[in-house]
Amino acid sequence: MSMAPLRLATIGTSMITDQLLKALPYVEGVTFAGAYSRSSQKAKDYSRSHGASAWWDSLDELAQDPQVDAVYIASPNICHFEQAMQMVEAGKHVLVEKPLCSTLVEAEKLFAAAKAKGVCCMEAMRLAHDPAYEAIYQALPKLGTIRRARFAYGKYSSRYDLVLEGTQTNIFDPALATGALMDLGVYPINALVLLFGEPDDLMAFADTVDVTGNDDLIDICGSAIFDYPSMIGEVSYSKATDDLLPTQIEGEKGTMLIHEMSSPSKVEIVYRDGAKEELSWRQRKNPTTHEVSNLEFELQDFVNAAAGELDLARFTGNTLVSLGIMDTIRLREGIVFPHDGEE
Amino acid sequence: MSMAPLRLATIGTSMITDQLLKALPYVEGVTFAGAYSRSSQKAKDYSRSHGASAWWDSLDELAQDPQVDAVYIASPNICHFEQAMQMVEAGKHVLVEKPLCSTLVEAEKLFAAAKAKGVCCMEAMRLAHDPAYEAIYQALPKLGTIRRARFAYGKYSSRYDLVLEGTQTNIFDPALATGALMDLGVYPINALVLLFGEPDDLMAFADTVDVTGNDDLIDICGSAIFDYPSMIGEVSYSKATDDLLPTQIEGEKGTMLIHEMSSPSKVEIVYRDGAKEELSWRQRKNPTTHEVSNLEFELQDFVNAAAGELDLARFTGNTLVSLGIMDTIRLREGIVFPHDGEE
Repeated sequence: MSMAPLRLATIGTSMITDQLLKALPYVEGVTFAGAYSRSSQKAKDYSRSHGASAWWDSLDELAQDPQVDAVYIASPNICHFEQAMQMVEAGKHVLVEKPLCSTLVEAEKLFAAAKAKGVCCMEAMRLAHDPAYEAIYQALPKLGTIRRARFAYGKYSSRYDLVLEGTQTNIFDPALATGALMDLGVYPINALVLLFGEPDDLMAFADTVDVTGNDDLIDICGSAIFDYPSMIGEVSYSKATDDLLPTQIEGEKGTMLIHEMSSPSKVEIVYRDGAKEELSWRQRKNPTTHEVSNLEFELQDFVNAAAGELDLARFTGNTLVSLGIMDTIRLREGIVFPHDGEE
Repeated sequence: MSMAPLRLATIGTSMITDQLLKALPYVEGVTFAGAYSRSSQKAKDYSRSHGASAWWDSLDELAQDPQVDAVYIASPNICHFEQAMQMVEAGKHVLVEKPLCSTLVEAEKLFAAAKAKGVCCMEAMRLAHDPAYEAIYQALPKLGTIRRARFAYGKYSSRYDLVLEGTQTNIFDPALATGALMDLGVYPINALVLLFGEPDDLMAFADTVDVTGNDDLIDICGSAIFDYPSMIGEVSYSKATDDLLPTQIEGEKGTMLIHEMSSPSKVEIVYRDGAKEELSWRQRKNPTTHEVSNLEFELQDFVNAAAGELDLARFTGNTLVSLGIMDTIRLREGIVFPHDGEE
């Protein structure tokens, strides 16, 4: 049975949207419908340069356009909830960049609205859809009783130079619900939850800077530890330094090393006797070498879900648990966004 | 000026004492006086096999022997305080295996007693005496503002097999004040304090097992995070798993990797532009390749201090801060030793 392809529009014209559109030709059952931007010139140029003729500079018009089945939302974090709600209420499926929302409460409302409307709402957490993580999950019993797992993602942001100069920038702006946790921190937290579920307790510290001089603290890096019944989780994230270590899962029989945890390039088990085993998994079709080329798996799952061929419950659960953890980390670190009080 | 060599006796006949005695020929101003053991046969055999004729099976006789200037104490943790006090009060210098004592309160009493008697009391924290750490400390400014440091020491203990079988063993026995924190955890904590001083706050989780069936919990691995004014410290330790990652210090300008943190084999800075720099330092004289061959630096500092040529204040400070941290970690993890209430 052949179905009409999903017509996907995009909100946001930054690099991550480019990367999703580069993955799109390797996904079955989807076409690019066109781009939205507040600037009509930008919307028009972006759509055309990516092979679409439609474009929108009005969210209302995008929401009401019958030629659009689904919307990919890659706007600043602070816009995710409102934009996704509008599209869901108009009957569109939504794929929303991570983090899905700024808080758990927003995410619960959004998922409830999607369910009521009978549309799909999925967070663009690409690692959760990468077959590498299925291979990792299946291999965990080889490690024996697992006692600790350390997940980390730390990469110096070129925009951090602006922070050091005292210049405000979107990705380090409390008003936009951004910072290290809400950007790179999302990856290690989601990966930990994906493999080990919800922890019993957690503790966290962050390094913060005052970006406005008015005590508007934004986190530039952080560390958290998670208490599970018989293991400890460690999560590290940074946009002010480079973390060069692989992710490590320590079991009583062996230790697993995951290189490039957001899009695993190599996963190895080192057993107690020194023997090594490398995992293999279904590779992507996209031949580009850039690490985010694993976006095709995320997009394929979204397309399949929109076609009614995949249940998103597992991914929805991960998103909710992870957002709850992020709320708790921010509470413990004292990171408050002006937006927090709105819901 | 040439002085009579320090005559050093030993308490404890396990591997660590063997290793210290292997380092001794590479240290100036010290000779092996003989060994103590509760078993006279063992004391006699051990002394002779290591080239000494004297031996003791009575701590009182050892303490009163005028042919002994100093004592190296490598008995179970629980014995350190009492034995070191006895030797100090008899006017001997003491070098005590790490951790110096089971609690901060004991250490403060021991240092006070040594000061009153005019003898040296030093914890055998070998990394603090390794010239590698001086080279690391001097190189830290190259990293720019340091935002995070992760120190870890995790090695599966062959004796953990006994724990899994339900058999009690000395190094996992609450009654002897042992466990993962009190054994390998001492190293990363001391290294962090050595380089970065006392943290403002800390949080910790441990994995524990009930070794007696009477809720006598002992920790088999643990993770702690430390809050400093502008950086985060991470400490991991384990005797139930193998931690394969190097120690990492993340700065805004570069990241330092320390391989084998208890006796650094290689220290490398990776700058933001990818350039690498390897640190060098004064190497040991002992040509054996075993990692603990850096014991000669610790022993030389002890001998120099006993000769009045080195002030131990810096090392004493490290020991006290680290023991305070270990008290706090145990408190937060709920690890209580029967011995804790005694002081």
